[in-house]
Amino acid sequence: MAHALRLAEKGLYTTQPNPRVGCVIARGETVLGTGWHQQAGEPHAEVFALREAGESARGATAYVTLEPCAHFGRTPPCADALIAAGVGRVVIAHEDPFDKVSGAGIEKLRAAGIGVQLGLLRDAAHDLNVGFFSRIQRGRPWVRAKLAMSLDGRTALADGSSKWITGEAARADVQRWRARASAILSASGTVLADDPRLTVRLPEHERFVPPLRAIVDTALRTPAGAHVLDAAAPTVFFHAPDAPVPGHLANATRAAIRREDGGGIDLHAVLHWLALHDVNEVHVEAGPVLCGALLAAGLVDELLVYIAPVLLGDSARPMLHLPPLDDMASRWKLRTVDRRQIGDDTRLQLRPTAPTATHVAPAKAGAQ
Amino acid sequence: MAHALRLAEKGLYTTQPNPRVGCVIARGETVLGTGWHQQAGEPHAEVFALREAGESARGATAYVTLEPCAHFGRTPPCADALIAAGVGRVVIAHEDPFDKVSGAGIEKLRAAGIGVQLGLLRDAAHDLNVGFFSRIQRGRPWVRAKLAMSLDGRTALADGSSKWITGEAARADVQRWRARASAILSASGTVLADDPRLTVRLPEHERFVPPLRAIVDTALRTPAGAHVLDAAAPTVFFHAPDAPVPGHLANATRAAIRREDGGGIDLHAVLHWLALHDVNEVHVEAGPVLCGALLAAGLVDELLVYIAPVLLGDSARPMLHLPPLDDMASRWKLRTVDRRQIGDDTRLQLRPTAPTATHVAPAKAGAQ
Repeated sequence: MAHALRLAEKGLYTTQPNPRVGCVIARGETVLGTGWHQQAGEPHAEVFALREAGESARGATAYVTLEPCAHFGRTPPCADALIAAGVGRVVIAHEDPFDKVSGAGIEKLRAAGIGVQLGLLRDAAHDLNVGFFSRIQRGRPWVRAKLAMSLDGRTALADGSSKWITGEAARADVQRWRARASAILSASGTVLADDPRLTVRLPEHERFVPPLRAIVDTALRTPAGAHVLDAAAPTVFFHAPDAPVPGHLANATRAAIRREDGGGIDLHAVLHWLALHDVNEVHVEAGPVLCGALLAAGLVDELLVYIAPVLLGDSARPMLHLPPLDDMASRWKLRTVDRRQIGDDTRLQLRPTAPTATHVAPAKAGAQ
Repeated sequence: MAHALRLAEKGLYTTQPNPRVGCVIARGETVLGTGWHQQAGEPHAEVFALREAGESARGATAYVTLEPCAHFGRTPPCADALIAAGVGRVVIAHEDPFDKVSGAGIEKLRAAGIGVQLGLLRDAAHDLNVGFFSRIQRGRPWVRAKLAMSLDGRTALADGSSKWITGEAARADVQRWRARASAILSASGTVLADDPRLTVRLPEHERFVPPLRAIVDTALRTPAGAHVLDAAAPTVFFHAPDAPVPGHLANATRAAIRREDGGGIDLHAVLHWLALHDVNEVHVEAGPVLCGALLAAGLVDELLVYIAPVLLGDSARPMLHLPPLDDMASRWKLRTVDRRQIGDDTRLQLRPTAPTATHVAPAKAGAQ
C-alpha cells in the first residue's frame, strides 16, 4: 500500500479535479502491475495496473489507495474491471468520500466473492487527497495559507517591499505547493502592490494543471495590464454585487458575492463557489488582511509558514491582521504537523486546533 | 577529546567566572583518569585527572580542552603538575585566550620535553566557553538574547499579558540557559510590567552559581518590593548619572552610566561594566525596546528564539523595536546555528552575520 501511495503521489500536480490514486497488483512479494491516475478523463489507477499485470492478475491481490469506483463516469467502473480480471483480494486504504456511493465499490467486489480489506494506511491516503475529501464532505476546498515572514513576524517593509525575505530554496518549494493546488487565492491589495503572476514555475519536464487564479477584489480594482489578466492561467474575480465593472474586466470571469456585515465579501461564499467549480485545494498567497479574515472566519485549514533568519523590525508590516484578543486564553492555537529546514529558512506546517468551519450554510452561498 | 569536552560540560553551571575545562588521561584506548573543573577556587581539571591516574600517568597522554595554566593563580600551575606526573604527551583543544599568557603553558610543557598537539576539536572547545573568550578577547561578555514569541512574532498582548506563550518544556529549557549565564540582563520596563524573579529554577539536585541580575533602569524606577530586590541572587541597577536614587535602592548595587545622545544609557558601557565584574555570558530577558537597542548597537551575539504554535494578531506587542529599514537589502541578516523542537515549540538559535561590536572603546566605558 505504501508503494501504491507513492504511485498516487505521481499524480499530485495533474489529476485535478480528480483524486490522486495509486494501485499495485501483487502476489506475495512479487509486483505484477502498477498504475496511477494521471489526469481527468484518462483511465484510473486500477486500469493501468491490470493492463500491466495481464493474465497474472487472476487470484492476485490488488492494493488501491481509494475505493474502486462502481459507477460509469468518464470511464467504466473499476470494480467491474477488477472482478473481470479475477483478482482474489482487494486491499483499500480509504473508502469513497461520496456519501451515496461510499461502499458501493466494496459491495460490488464482495458480491463477486472477492475478499476486501479496508483501512490500511487510511490517514496517509486521506492526507494525499485532503482537498478532494474536503470538497466532497464539507462543501468547501481545503485552504492552505502560505506565509513568508522574517524571524520577527514581518512580511514586508513599511513601503510594501518584500523581495525577498525567504531564500531561493523556499521560493522553489512554494511552486510545488502552488502546483498541487486547484486554485491560488489572493486579493486585489496584493495585485496592486506586487502585480504577481500567481502561476506555477516548475522545471520544464514536470507537468501540472495550471491552478485557477482566484482574486478577492471587492471593488474590482485590478488594473488593466495586471499579470493575473494574462493567458498563463484562468482567473476569477470575486467582487461585491454593487461594484462597477471596468471595461478591461468586462470579459473576465467574475462572481458577485454578497457583502458581509463588516463590508467585505462573504468568504464562505467564495469558497463555496470554488468548491462548486471543482477546486480541491486552495493555496492562499495574500496579505495580512485576507489571510487574517480567512483565519478569523475559521476558514484556514493549514498554515504553511516560511521563517527566514532575518529581522525587519516593528515598523515593518505584520503577518496577520486579526481582531484583538481579550486575554491569553483566547489566543489562536495551532498544532505543528511538520517542521523542516528549506535552504536557510525554517518551514512550519500547522493546523488550527479548534475545528474549522465545515459545510457552508446554503443561505450564505450567495454566489451568482 | 570528545570525552574531555563532555566532562568540561559538567561544569556548565558552576565554574563561573572560570572557564569550563575537562581532562582525560589515557594510554591508547585505556582511560586512566578523568577530571573537570567544578568551581572557582577548587582544583583544575588536570589535577583531578592526575589524582585519579596516579602513577599510571607516567608516559600517558593527557587530553585537555584548554591550555594548562602556567602561572600561580588560586591554584598552582597545571603545566607543572603534568610535568611532575611525567605524562608523555599533551593534546590541547584550544590555547589560553589571555594574550600575554597564551602559549606559556605549551612552552613550559615543550621545554620539559613533552610533545604537545594543539587544535583538536578547537571550535567545540571555543563554543563551550564562548563567554569566557568574549570577555578576555573582546572586553565584553557574550550576549545571548532570549525571545519567546507567537508564530506571528508577538511577545505579549496589547495589555502586556504574556503568560504563557510558550509551553512548559520551553520554559524549563530557558532555566538551563539562565543557569549557564553569569548575568541575566533585563530592563525596568519588564520589572514594572511582570515583576519577574530572574532567578534560576532547576531540579533540586542540580548546583549552579546564581547569575547576577542586571537591570537597565535609567531613571531608577524599580519599585520597593520588586522580586529583583530579594535575596535570591545579587542584583545591579544601571542608571543615568542624573537619576535620583529612591530610598529603597540606596543600599542596592548601582552603576551610573553615561547617557547616549539618544537619551538611553550607553549599553556598551553596561557590558563593559559586566565584563569588569567577571561576567562571561549575559542572558537577556527583556522587552522589545532593550532587545532592539542591543541589537541595533551590534551588541547581540546570539538570539535564542522560542516560537510557539499560536497566533496573537497584529494588535499584540512586537518582538523587537528596531529603527525602520530603508530597503530590503539592509534587513538584519542572521545565521541559524541550531533548530529544534522543544515540547510543542520550535527553538531557533541564530547569530548575526554582520560582525558584532568588539572591544569597548575606553572613552565609552563611563561606568563608575
